[in-house]
Amino acid sequence: MPAMPATKSNQPVIPQTGLDARLAIRNGEWTGPTSGMAPGYVQGNLAILPAKVASDFMRFCQLNPKPCPVLAAGAPGDPHLPSLGADLDIRTDLCRYKVFRNGELIDEPTDLMKHWRDDLVIFALGCSFSFEDALMQDGIELRHITNSTTVPMYRTSIETTAAGPFHGPLVVSMRPLKPADAIRAIQITTRFPAVHGAPVHIGMPESIGIKDIMKPEYGDPPQINPGEIPVFWACGVTPQSVVATVKPEFCITHYPGCMLVTDRKNSEYAIM
Amino acid sequence: MPAMPATKSNQPVIPQTGLDARLAIRNGEWTGPTSGMAPGYVQGNLAILPAKVASDFMRFCQLNPKPCPVLAAGAPGDPHLPSLGADLDIRTDLCRYKVFRNGELIDEPTDLMKHWRDDLVIFALGCSFSFEDALMQDGIELRHITNSTTVPMYRTSIETTAAGPFHGPLVVSMRPLKPADAIRAIQITTRFPAVHGAPVHIGMPESIGIKDIMKPEYGDPPQINPGEIPVFWACGVTPQSVVATVKPEFCITHYPGCMLVTDRKNSEYAIM
Repeated sequence: MPAMPATKSNQPVIPQTGLDARLAIRNGEWTGPTSGMAPGYVQGNLAILPAKVASDFMRFCQLNPKPCPVLAAGAPGDPHLPSLGADLDIRTDLCRYKVFRNGELIDEPTDLMKHWRDDLVIFALGCSFSFEDALMQDGIELRHITNSTTVPMYRTSIETTAAGPFHGPLVVSMRPLKPADAIRAIQITTRFPAVHGAPVHIGMPESIGIKDIMKPEYGDPPQINPGEIPVFWACGVTPQSVVATVKPEFCITHYPGCMLVTDRKNSEYAIM
Repeated sequence: MPAMPATKSNQPVIPQTGLDARLAIRNGEWTGPTSGMAPGYVQGNLAILPAKVASDFMRFCQLNPKPCPVLAAGAPGDPHLPSLGADLDIRTDLCRYKVFRNGELIDEPTDLMKHWRDDLVIFALGCSFSFEDALMQDGIELRHITNSTTVPMYRTSIETTAAGPFHGPLVVSMRPLKPADAIRAIQITTRFPAVHGAPVHIGMPESIGIKDIMKPEYGDPPQINPGEIPVFWACGVTPQSVVATVKPEFCITHYPGCMLVTDRKNSEYAIM
């Protein structure tokens, strides 16, 4: 397995637009996580599947828009997503990828040139970075960012709506908030249905099948202060977890933290 | 003290518009609570104060828009509020009133003809009926309505912002909701800032000074089912409670349940 990519702190100049971010990545000048790059620009989760299963996956996303908000889907074999960036080439524009064959991780390359096939379909899915940006602009503290940890994520007892082979539990991310901030966060994220939208649950983890809030299935254990309630959003790990269950013959995702940086602004996705 | 007005069930024809409702009341054909009259039309809380304190009260309302959303304010001595109804006459158009002198209840008349003064200023304030209508239209169960009880209301440790002599604690109403309904209710009521708007608190009554959720200061004790969280909205009892504290030389309010029925539709007050 390749070494962790270099972190942002090793890199002096932070690209300020989506295009600059992709060029820096494409040219090998930026190899690390994309958090903090191109502030205000939408970053997306990536899933690439063979055409054979892609239409079922597309239907799965449309049936489950909160965990799987489709920002763009490609034509079979087409590595471009012009609606997210005129020059965007999915094969070179992410820092690092994960490549799976029959559910097994076979490579973590920095480009997809040797893996690309003419039946592959790209899915770019909205990511919580966008709504977190809106929350922080409103002055709401996000604990995992304050603490430089990964947001805690939990497998719930809520089932997604199945499509073809794709099915499985909803995965949620959790942010502890003071009640007044939770209300404000619901208002703000409601404006962003394309990037997970409003929370799916507040306050009662046990009622959505979370047995121990301090033991997330993904990410780091939370720090919940007195007077805070847990607020749960549908999470982009849901489609990854669902795809992993299906074990498709071939599949590519982004490497954790190494997102697709687009030319679209977060604010463009606000519905009002 | 006069007897309770007749209830709706004694009255065969329910007026369907604000104007019809006011005419029925004005003509003495309707003497009871206004809940259920003129479905879809805005009903308001009423406060009438001498001009001497009215500008402080207006400022108090503007500083505290969640508990005190002003639908309309009259000119001194003018008993009409044309923006809420062309023919509206506040002296005759409510079923019953409460009249206070120096904070003491002196009368509960069915019209204000003998109490009207040419220095009186009318305040019509938004009421939770409007947002409850929107919640029920969305299929959200409101327990106090299911149970035919009065919504529980609590004095909180949250202070309103003072203006002149007007100051005092925020009073909130509480509706127990399933977490997903609570999120939806926040979305819906956010659209109605003119009728209390989004909740002010969820989930942690003790953190806003409510010691025993089963002992509301006003209304009936709640029925909270397992898996429900308490959701708190700013309440129109706040200005009444504040005015009662100030004990103005003269003051008139609506009789509980006997609201001002207007020609405006609830839907007009949705901001989107």
